[in-house]
Amino acid sequence: MNQIDLANSVGIVTPQSFTFAEDEPFQLESGATLSPVTIAYETYGRLNADRSNAILIVHALSGSAHAAGYHSPDDPKPGWWDDCIGPGKAFDTNRFFVICSNVIGSCYGSTGPASINPATGKPYGLNFPVVTIGDMVRAQVRLIDHLGIDQLLCVAGGSMGGMQVLEWAAHHPTRLKAAIALATTAHHSPMQIAFSEVGRQAIYADPNWNNGNYYESGKKPDAGLAVARMVGHITYLSEESMQKKFGRRLQGLERYGYEFQTEFEVESYLKYNGNNFTRRFDANSYLYITKAMDYFDLSKPTGSLAASFANSAHLKYLVISFTSDWLYPSYHSKQLVSALTAVGADVTYVDLQSSWGHDAFLLEVETMTRLIHSFLDRLVREEQVAPPDEGSAVAAAPAAPSGQPAVGVTR
Amino acid sequence: MNQIDLANSVGIVTPQSFTFAEDEPFQLESGATLSPVTIAYETYGRLNADRSNAILIVHALSGSAHAAGYHSPDDPKPGWWDDCIGPGKAFDTNRFFVICSNVIGSCYGSTGPASINPATGKPYGLNFPVVTIGDMVRAQVRLIDHLGIDQLLCVAGGSMGGMQVLEWAAHHPTRLKAAIALATTAHHSPMQIAFSEVGRQAIYADPNWNNGNYYESGKKPDAGLAVARMVGHITYLSEESMQKKFGRRLQGLERYGYEFQTEFEVESYLKYNGNNFTRRFDANSYLYITKAMDYFDLSKPTGSLAASFANSAHLKYLVISFTSDWLYPSYHSKQLVSALTAVGADVTYVDLQSSWGHDAFLLEVETMTRLIHSFLDRLVREEQVAPPDEGSAVAAAPAAPSGQPAVGVTR
Repeated sequence: MNQIDLANSVGIVTPQSFTFAEDEPFQLESGATLSPVTIAYETYGRLNADRSNAILIVHALSGSAHAAGYHSPDDPKPGWWDDCIGPGKAFDTNRFFVICSNVIGSCYGSTGPASINPATGKPYGLNFPVVTIGDMVRAQVRLIDHLGIDQLLCVAGGSMGGMQVLEWAAHHPTRLKAAIALATTAHHSPMQIAFSEVGRQAIYADPNWNNGNYYESGKKPDAGLAVARMVGHITYLSEESMQKKFGRRLQGLERYGYEFQTEFEVESYLKYNGNNFTRRFDANSYLYITKAMDYFDLSKPTGSLAASFANSAHLKYLVISFTSDWLYPSYHSKQLVSALTAVGADVTYVDLQSSWGHDAFLLEVETMTRLIHSFLDRLVREEQVAPPDEGSAVAAAPAAPSGQPAVGVTR
Repeated sequence: MNQIDLANSVGIVTPQSFTFAEDEPFQLESGATLSPVTIAYETYGRLNADRSNAILIVHALSGSAHAAGYHSPDDPKPGWWDDCIGPGKAFDTNRFFVICSNVIGSCYGSTGPASINPATGKPYGLNFPVVTIGDMVRAQVRLIDHLGIDQLLCVAGGSMGGMQVLEWAAHHPTRLKAAIALATTAHHSPMQIAFSEVGRQAIYADPNWNNGNYYESGKKPDAGLAVARMVGHITYLSEESMQKKFGRRLQGLERYGYEFQTEFEVESYLKYNGNNFTRRFDANSYLYITKAMDYFDLSKPTGSLAASFANSAHLKYLVISFTSDWLYPSYHSKQLVSALTAVGADVTYVDLQSSWGHDAFLLEVETMTRLIHSFLDRLVREEQVAPPDEGSAVAAAPAAPSGQPAVGVTR
């Protein structure tokens, strides 16, 4: 068994889920309606008496609701942002009630293309409607309603998570007090769209994809999905981090083999990660979620980014970019900060020196912890957020100790 | 018919080829022997009496020997570097005898994986031996021998062409006087290897690839090759050039279609170029040539780049990098220039301000023409290179007017 360090962890957590009421169909931006809709989520820490200490964590392309802790005592790995969520960590579960939910369109418990289409009794495949970042966030709003939380203290996330953060701020400004957007953008650039599209083309090119109908064939488009993930992995690193991590080193070889096998360490890394990904992710979800990212363009409805934040100037923002992130380069964050400051918002911005590329938002834990800590400290002080009070459990909201299933919450 | 502007063109050119003598087997770096070996090439302009005005142009990954002029009066497109090769152009065919040959391993007339394996009477496929940049260049040396040229005035090329230029300079320093290396590197970095490998994995993932045996099946791995090319195309552009070229514009649509078709202009561009590529290039050649690039590491034999140029300090070098080229970033050229100047070589280096990314070496024609012109002017003056003399045709060397088949040269 893996020794879990309980002092530094939220411990064992239980996946939860919430299914929207049947009489409230979920209308998508495309005009289509999705029903039923289930949202998978987890919570860490405890809600305080006036429900003012809730923080929503939103995940990136391949993330899940499992952001912290372990699912069982012998779980080999903790949640994807365990470095930042837990007692004393950036998102301190001794002070905050932290929620993380899986986006719709994904394959980790929320409704997505692998879910059963009630019209056919079979998985949706490509009959699943195209969803947007806006749709993902409106589903999260319903979850927050369900948990009995009127206003989140903060929404935080990186990469596609950052897009959701900005969507929350721009379109649901009364439902949160602060936004933390890391390594992200207010609109997908043509280069980001290009990388998405190459990944999708790799999946389409796999005959096992079969126009999205593969759930019952026993043959998944693993080869195509692996190539898509490899392309992605390159964009998450930087030239410098690749140089440090791999250089031109050969994988277990003294000299060139003069054949087409995996020879360089960097090739081995890509292949390993590409193949691994096919064991945990659904190819159709990859299509839907990258499409949602490509559609994301906050300035579209108003014509200007500043105008899109006109009603969101009262929020507090922490924006962090990373100098070596060439997928979501710093200038995207600077454009965002420029728009936010133009409407008079309270913005803390840091362009963090890092060699880790886009992955920095998962790796630069120490500096990020300092920045997030001090941002949240100020927020707690200024908004007079009370610590969680054990005596104040509320029926609709999980108030059990960290990681325990909450009373009254659909599992 | 396409109106060919003869005053600005080398005109109609005829592809030529040279097959190595059978009693001189071609030994590869891997230890394998390749025979027969044919090199496809073209020449433009005329050789002067003392054979001192020859310039070899070396091509990039998907290039061919057809660098300038037209193959027929109704040829829709000229050679790949027609902007720079011709009367009065950067490589002025009124003054120089310009040669361009197709690399071995390619599919444009030189021996490669699609050629017939004499041992089986069928196309080589993966039985073709792995070739290196060094092998490509040693094949070019044989061509130059065949053309009766002892010493080239210059070898010039960009990207993989630049690697061949550096290989010529480092390993055949008595056979050339000057080297022009554009948008290139002295060793493939892990990021460059990673992009190569993703392209190869896309090809391997295509069931039609069939381990390289597809020439007789009637089904080529087009889907995989197209994905490989799309990945390549992203790396040839820059964020800025994509923003200028495409932005977030939709292709013939007013609003999002909320389905998985080609919607953004950048997607349409990638798809078009990916599909087009499959009509002109061989997937196995893509594997072999990217592998040759990945193996390229000039400092490997000596342990230091400067030491590798120890015997090449007497050459003159023009090195050009482009500020927005993130595939072969400027710092690679700076490392090269540092090594060359460390051994005392005569180096002209310019880091050209450009927004076109790696493609700049094909697009920044005006500035490059000025730089190459002045570099070659100085070379002509200092080396006292005579103009071509019509009365001095030599049997083994093509001395016919520009583009005409040369006397005595294997076609």
